[in-house]
Amino acid sequence: MSKVGIIMGSTSDLPIMQEAIDILKDFDIEVEVDIVSAHRTPDKLFDYGKNAHERGMNVIIAGAGGAAHLPGMIASLSPLPVIGVPVKSRNSIDGWDSVLSILQMPGGVPVATVALDGAKNAGILAAQIIGTSDKSVLNKILTYKEGLKQKVIDGAKEVNKG
Amino acid sequence: MSKVGIIMGSTSDLPIMQEAIDILKDFDIEVEVDIVSAHRTPDKLFDYGKNAHERGMNVIIAGAGGAAHLPGMIASLSPLPVIGVPVKSRNSIDGWDSVLSILQMPGGVPVATVALDGAKNAGILAAQIIGTSDKSVLNKILTYKEGLKQKVIDGAKEVNKG
Amino acid sequence: MSKVGIIMGSTSDLPIMQEAIDILKDFDIEVEVDIVSAHRTPDKLFDYGKNAHERGMNVIIAGAGGAAHLPGMIASLSPLPVIGVPVKSRNSIDGWDSVLSILQMPGGVPVATVALDGAKNAGILAAQIIGTSDKSVLNKILTYKEGLKQKVIDGAKEVNKG
Amino acid sequence: MSKVGIIMGSTSDLPIMQEAIDILKDFDIEVEVDIVSAHRTPDKLFDYGKNAHERGMNVIIAGAGGAAHLPGMIASLSPLPVIGVPVKSRNSIDGWDSVLSILQMPGGVPVATVALDGAKNAGILAAQIIGTSDKSVLNKILTYKEGLKQKVIDGAKEVNKG
Amino acid sequence: MSKVGIIMGSTSDLPIMQEAIDILKDFDIEVEVDIVSAHRTPDKLFDYGKNAHERGMNVIIAGAGGAAHLPGMIASLSPLPVIGVPVKSRNSIDGWDSVLSILQMPGGVPVATVALDGAKNAGILAAQIIGTSDKSVLNKILTYKEGLKQKVIDGAKEVNKG
Amino acid sequence: MSKVGIIMGSTSDLPIMQEAIDILKDFDIEVEVDIVSAHRTPDKLFDYGKNAHERGMNVIIAGAGGAAHLPGMIASLSPLPVIGVPVKSRNSIDGWDSVLSILQMPGGVPVATVALDGAKNAGILAAQIIGTSDKSVLNKILTYKEGLKQKVIDGAKEVNKG
Amino acid sequence: MSKVGIIMGSTSDLPIMQEAIDILKDFDIEVEVDIVSAHRTPDKLFDYGKNAHERGMNVIIAGAGGAAHLPGMIASLSPLPVIGVPVKSRNSIDGWDSVLSILQMPGGVPVATVALDGAKNAGILAAQIIGTSDKSVLNKILTYKEGLKQKVIDGAKEVNKG
Amino acid sequence: MSKVGIIMGSTSDLPIMQEAIDILKDFDIEVEVDIVSAHRTPDKLFDYGKNAHERGMNVIIAGAGGAAHLPGMIASLSPLPVIGVPVKSRNSIDGWDSVLSILQMPGGVPVATVALDGAKNAGILAAQIIGTSDKSVLNKILTYKEGLKQKVIDGAKEVNKG
Repeated sequence: MSKVGIIMGSTSDLPIMQEAIDILKDFDIEVEVDIVSAHRTPDKLFDYGKNAHERGMNVIIAGAGGAAHLPGMIASLSPLPVIGVPVKSRNSIDGWDSVLSILQMPGGVPVATVALDGAKNAGILAAQIIGTSDKSVLNKILTYKEGLKQKVIDGAKEVNKG
Repeated sequence: MSKVGIIMGSTSDLPIMQEAIDILKDFDIEVEVDIVSAHRTPDKLFDYGKNAHERGMNVIIAGAGGAAHLPGMIASLSPLPVIGVPVKSRNSIDGWDSVLSILQMPGGVPVATVALDGAKNAGILAAQIIGTSDKSVLNKILTYKEGLKQKVIDGAKEVNKG
Repeated sequence: MSKVGIIMGSTSDLPIMQEAIDILKDFDIEVEVDIVSAHRTPDKLFDYGKNAHERGMNVIIAGAGGAAHLPGMIASLSPLPVIGVPVKSRNSIDGWDSVLSILQMPGGVPVATVALDGAKNAGILAAQIIGTSDKSVLNKILTYKEGLKQKVIDGAKEVNKG
Repeated sequence: MSKVGIIMGSTSDLPIMQEAIDILKDFDIEVEVDIVSAHRTPDKLFDYGKNAHERGMNVIIAGAGGAAHLPGMIASLSPLPVIGVPVKSRNSIDGWDSVLSILQMPGGVPVATVALDGAKNAGILAAQIIGTSDKSVLNKILTYKEGLKQKVIDGAKEVNKG
Repeated sequence: MSKVGIIMGSTSDLPIMQEAIDILKDFDIEVEVDIVSAHRTPDKLFDYGKNAHERGMNVIIAGAGGAAHLPGMIASLSPLPVIGVPVKSRNSIDGWDSVLSILQMPGGVPVATVALDGAKNAGILAAQIIGTSDKSVLNKILTYKEGLKQKVIDGAKEVNKG
Repeated sequence: MSKVGIIMGSTSDLPIMQEAIDILKDFDIEVEVDIVSAHRTPDKLFDYGKNAHERGMNVIIAGAGGAAHLPGMIASLSPLPVIGVPVKSRNSIDGWDSVLSILQMPGGVPVATVALDGAKNAGILAAQIIGTSDKSVLNKILTYKEGLKQKVIDGAKEVNKG
Repeated sequence: MSKVGIIMGSTSDLPIMQEAIDILKDFDIEVEVDIVSAHRTPDKLFDYGKNAHERGMNVIIAGAGGAAHLPGMIASLSPLPVIGVPVKSRNSIDGWDSVLSILQMPGGVPVATVALDGAKNAGILAAQIIGTSDKSVLNKILTYKEGLKQKVIDGAKEVNKG
Repeated sequence: MSKVGIIMGSTSDLPIMQEAIDILKDFDIEVEVDIVSAHRTPDKLFDYGKNAHERGMNVIIAGAGGAAHLPGMIASLSPLPVIGVPVKSRNSIDGWDSVLSILQMPGGVPVATVALDGAKNAGILAAQIIGTSDKSVLNKILTYKEGLKQKVIDGAKEVNKG
């Protein structure tokens, strides 16, 4: 069975990253959550990055803010697809530091970057990746997209009434 | 067998996007290349997005510049993972328009964004996604990462000699 | 009689977009309001864009935030003038994403972009467009401009008194 | 018959603004070209802005760079729809000054802003505005959009062959 | 006797611009305050700019926000030194629009720009300009600078105590 | 007689700053040119700033790039009006560093900032400041402004012919 | 014994700069705190910069906001390593002015810049500099880094429990 | 004797980083140069960071571009002061990515950041750090600063002659 590793640099990132956890649970995909700091627990970073694919992980979601090195360093160490979530942390310069230090990876080591504070989309993307080889997950995504559409249509009805 | 669809908004994006084609061929992954413009061929965009997963595609790579709507619109239409390549096109404002209009997708519809002009990384990320269910591709990625390391080590030797 | 279609990506954009509705009503111009999401209701987007000019619409105002694809995609599908309102949505990077993904359209497919959260100006611009062929609306705009002037002159009196 | 006034702050803007002239000629729409500098010929600016709608103009296209006040000042003076073209002039800070000083107009006085150096789109937008009351122009736009599509399809054939 | 004209685009700019009024009063320099909107009262703008130097004004301070055209247009019309105050107005994009549309004037028409919301410095600068020909004002500025120094020295004492 | 001190941080700024020298010579205003580096000759900076007003200078123009401290430090030391020219030096980040480190002075110590590389406008502004107490200079500025107008009108004739 | 001079442009910077004081006290390193304003007390700036290394200081930490000239001017005057802390002051443009006017020093005069409002890191960096010649301080840093790691590991336990 | 470790992410950074090597050689300070890529040789990064202080290094200079994680990761692993040089690499977004991903380190793990492409200043800063405990190096810095002053004074003579 597929499993998604969700890591973040600090417990203060959890309120944002919780959206990734929740949506993956909605898709019935197993998640493993941990705190791994590139700058404060480099050994744990190394262990995590080197072994994730052998511990049964299929995709890794990494969230971090400011000079956000966690997603890129995990991508350096692991052969798995790594999804990076730029978090707008307390001292961030409007989020630009988080975005650029995750997005602008050099040739050879990609990070699949989502929007600032876009943890929910990180979860959906992880599900889509799993869906490339798991028909049941692909179908859940198709259903999820139907649900998105329905909410807009319901909203439109309200507006047209008003 | 897995297949990656590579599309771009204009033939002028091809020199950048070729790097995605080349690296996927290095990984022996089948690619299908096409020009699909969100703004000039909206019908083709719709057909492409709606049917890609039924035509045997596993991952889609979409490159575009300026107000770059192609990756996001494909992500709107397809349940597959969509990788977006922001291209620094001729009239782009230093690439910021391309980056932000691909990266900042709303909750529910992710695009896996790579660096500005980062088509090579888009190709590697597509391979990593396929590698989540194809051991032989995963192994090729591990070998590729070894190659990256070796080139740096060779470069270091040159510097130390000099 | 002339009609302006006002659409937005989400009901959360309504407080901003309401200013366009209000000013057009002040000009006695008919409006039709709807929720159309480029990313969640792509089929509705297509129908809307392809048929608006045949349903009697003369101008379309489209508001959206973040990676804001709605105005550009409507402009791709419709021959009508499309006015884009960049909305500073919740996770927007200070509005830059909304502005650039609406403004920086490629050659061939213009969007008439107004200021960030500038829905009121979108409404006035729509009236000005209708005024190019409707003398009574042109006169209302001339009157409106007189009103703007009067308010400044009244404000100046207050300042000079104080 | 409809007429579009095209003005710019300096003859150095002409190479960019020529694209607006050319596309409007392609649509058989009459244009009147002039140099009007907000900062060097303020009297001419005033005459132009106040009288354009009485001299038979239907739409005004104004291009300027740096602290670009021409489009906004014309919009202040004229009841006509004003399309602003931010020009990336020699000392511009990457075009940001041109874009922001045209786009960010206060409530009450809109400028329909197009992309940086986007004079071609300014021409098309002017045609679309005229098309709201002139069926033959609307049809030319529909034909033009067909042409855009065809070029992409031809480009796609080349790519698929290669 | 010297006189400084202080104008602003809207009464909503008054809280910021008051600092210029206050500091000039501290220097015993006469001020004349008015509301002049480039976009809503263009005729008043013209009269003001063309006649200020003949009405006994020596320096003009102009504050405005967003696409801030007031300082530059006054500089276009008047031979007097014009000091521009970029105001961070409600819909401003973090003040960048105000700053760039005042600062980036083309060759031939300078605006002496001060910091964002820097009305106090605009007042001091006006006093310095008057001080170039009025010894008593120059001396007041020297005294003012002594006062600035004293406040820092007093603050330093507090910190060293604590 | 009035005199303008023109200083710059490095001889490499001279090609830009020459425009200030030239325009002031056109206005028959005496200039004194010197190289004063805030970071490499702090003693000279101090002498210059403290004594300029006693050496007969009326206005100081200071040009610098990158972390440009020269204009602000001179403003700290001198009671004279200081005009700052942000120079886009070799390693500047697109000129933003030069602009912001000159413009954003704290309350109490203004620098009259002109556009990036806007040395010509610095010269004109210095002339305008002198013109506040020297009728003959004021008249030269009025004449200069006439000349600006004439050049635009001549350019307009060329465009209308073509 | 080693000593770190901590200076800032205004008492309003103290809440931010206190973090540098506190962490250095935790490392048992002597600090001397003072208010030195580049723009309001230039004489004190000169005395401080010229004499710090002869008064027994080993490292200087300087915090300032806006057009922040204090760190660079101290670096101009002193042969000691100068650490600059960009402070996001009240009128700062999102901190960009503070960052760029400290970071972008010209060749020859470095400032060791830390993150926006990063006074704590300035203190740690000062300790690391002292640690290059003081084994006991180096050991305290190694212990401090262990503490950082432990806090993350404790946080991880909480997350795994929850 | 003191030693400075100079590392960079790629041999393509060498032309920039050579300035650090050269200036340190001018100060007779021993340097050790190596290529260490955070993203391609993570094991070497770990060995380097963990052991540098035990291999006799006193200061580390690390240069990197784009999503530049090398300086921050070394700072995570080593107790030594780490100087970061943001390099404007080929695909960098005007250098912003390099600057922000080095500068904006979280509390606890400082990187002493210098200007974009500021390798020379990184070398001087390393010398200043060594100078805190080595009188002869401190004296060389004082002499170096004299040299900087002399060059400006010589340049000033040329300007005054011309």
